Amino acid sequence: MITKNKRNELIQKSLKLLKKAHIEITPKEARSIETADFGLGEPERTGLQLIVYLNTERCCAKELIMLPRQTCPQHRHPPAANDPGKEETFRCRCGKVFLYVEGMPTAKPKCTPPKGSEKHYTVRNQIVLNPGRQYTLAPDTWHWFQAGPKGAVISEFSTKSRDEIDIFSDPRIRRKTVIAKTDKKKN
Amino acid sequence: MITKNKRNELIQKSLKLLKKAHIEITPKEARSIETADFGLGEPERTGLQLIVYLNTERCCAKELIMLPRQTCPQHRHPPAANDPGKEETFRCRCGKVFLYVEGMPTAKPKCTPPKGSEKHYTVRNQIVLNPGRQYTLAPDTWHWFQAGPKGAVISEFSTKSRDEIDIFSDPRIRRKTVIAKTDKKKN
Repeated sequence: MITKNKRNELIQKSLKLLKKAHIEITPKEARSIETADFGLGEPERTGLQLIVYLNTERCCAKELIMLPRQTCPQHRHPPAANDPGKEETFRCRCGKVFLYVEGMPTAKPKCTPPKGSEKHYTVRNQIVLNPGRQYTLAPDTWHWFQAGPKGAVISEFSTKSRDEIDIFSDPRIRRKTVIAKTDKKKN
Repeated sequence: MITKNKRNELIQKSLKLLKKAHIEITPKEARSIETADFGLGEPERTGLQLIVYLNTERCCAKELIMLPRQTCPQHRHPPAANDPGKEETFRCRCGKVFLYVEGMPTAKPKCTPPKGSEKHYTVRNQIVLNPGRQYTLAPDTWHWFQAGPKGAVISEFSTKSRDEIDIFSDPRIRRKTVIAKTDKKKN
């Protein structure tokens, strides 16, 4: 659980990062920023904040906002009916993000998984995303990512998000624990 | 035809607009900016510049860069095999863009179509997109858009782009005339 105060703090920090990235959002979007702690109760270590711009049957676009060294835990997007699994591209807009994917482990990676959760982080092929750099993940492949020391803002372009079927390596993470939404008010 | 000098001029102006929008691109992307004049030979009136971030079988993301009052002419994205037509969302990042779609004509629209081409612009329902505002177009619906007096940078999120099958209202526009690419060099 994220307390209301903690959620407000995460959102205020996220708004500052968006401002640093010069990304304009509407007041309604500002009020609907999602905060995810993946049920582990330590959102500054394992968590991220996001704004969903659109998520139709065919297409999805989001802005992911990560505080310094915040980690999105290892997961994959499995196939669903008539869908081979979500295909997603991360494009770094501001800050720096380290993405870990399947493949040859990087010899001296720049990140370590959150302490105590190491065994749930098995893919170690490092992709470094500086501003203007992007990477496209094949559907149903394991990945995790961590922001650099100043945080990061990342645009995500993808097919439909079906977050409820995402599979996490860490069995403590269940979908219903992932996201705590803020109260939504009328625009 | 756009001359090489004109194309370079359009690209330099586009790079300035991207800088103003604080959007980072790679040197390779800068060299592969596309300039479209739709075969009408007046790119500052009817034209736009674009960077394609990705265009897979399922998903597409672009940055559209428009000089002051530049107009993208009226067109639609028809169905293709197993595809009901491109679904696209425009999100204004910087500047202002006026989008015209099917529906009730706006009484006092802020834009006029390029002189001499008025008859090819039939949809007049105006959507104003300021930074942080977006609009999702249904597949196969007519639309055109024009940048405001300071130009605009617009993120486009969509299903696969099949530009070669786009249908334009103006019969002088044929797909092969739309885009003049710059020379591509190795990154």
